Amino acid sequence: MQVINFQEKLNKFSEQWSPKVIAQMNDYQFKLVKIQGEFVWHSHPETDEVFIVLAGAMSILFRDRQVDLQAGELIVVPKGVEHKPVAVAECQILLVEPVGTVNTGDTGGSMTAANDIWI
Amino acid sequence: MQVINFQEKLNKFSEQWSPKVIAQMNDYQFKLVKIQGEFVWHSHPETDEVFIVLAGAMSILFRDRQVDLQAGELIVVPKGVEHKPVAVAECQILLVEPVGTVNTGDTGGSMTAANDIWI
Repeated sequence: MQVINFQEKLNKFSEQWSPKVIAQMNDYQFKLVKIQGEFVWHSHPETDEVFIVLAGAMSILFRDRQVDLQAGELIVVPKGVEHKPVAVAECQILLVEPVGTVNTGDTGGSMTAANDIWI
Repeated sequence: MQVINFQEKLNKFSEQWSPKVIAQMNDYQFKLVKIQGEFVWHSHPETDEVFIVLAGAMSILFRDRQVDLQAGELIVVPKGVEHKPVAVAECQILLVEPVGTVNTGDTGGSMTAANDIWI
């Protein structure tokens, strides 16, 4: 039962698009990720996914719209909905999703990060 | 699929110890709560519970220790573990827990808030 400080954990890594687990609640994990540039289109057929922006700004492209988020904002991406995260400058995010959720979902490819990496 | 701004939602209510739902991911809810003073000792026998402090500072008393949290910090309270949140000045918190989780857990009493209240 330890206190987890977001900034302290964020200071521990610099690589982008590579979620790091900081906490687990039941079978859900809280992951920090730094993003910049364009991710791949993908969806998570089995689960919703929550993005909480901690610092910076990002957008999530959907097939029919674009949603802009900044620090202090949250969005739930419903399961099965294709999305593509993008950020002009580095953006720091807290993700909440079930254990085992892969960052590239059903798309895979070179941006697929190692899963379940704790910091 | 809408962006949820924490501050905008926090501005919508003033009552303390009464969690308000702002988002749902699968069968989990994200709730904002404002606290000040002392809550009741309780536990949630069925689930872990996450506290994320958005503004201010709080402590969580456990039977064998006290943990202090401030803005930008998270803690997972394991299921079944007795705890008592306290805050000297008003503290604003984001809770993450399963749908149906009652604020006073297995203790009940006058501080039990209406559940599943969305704002």
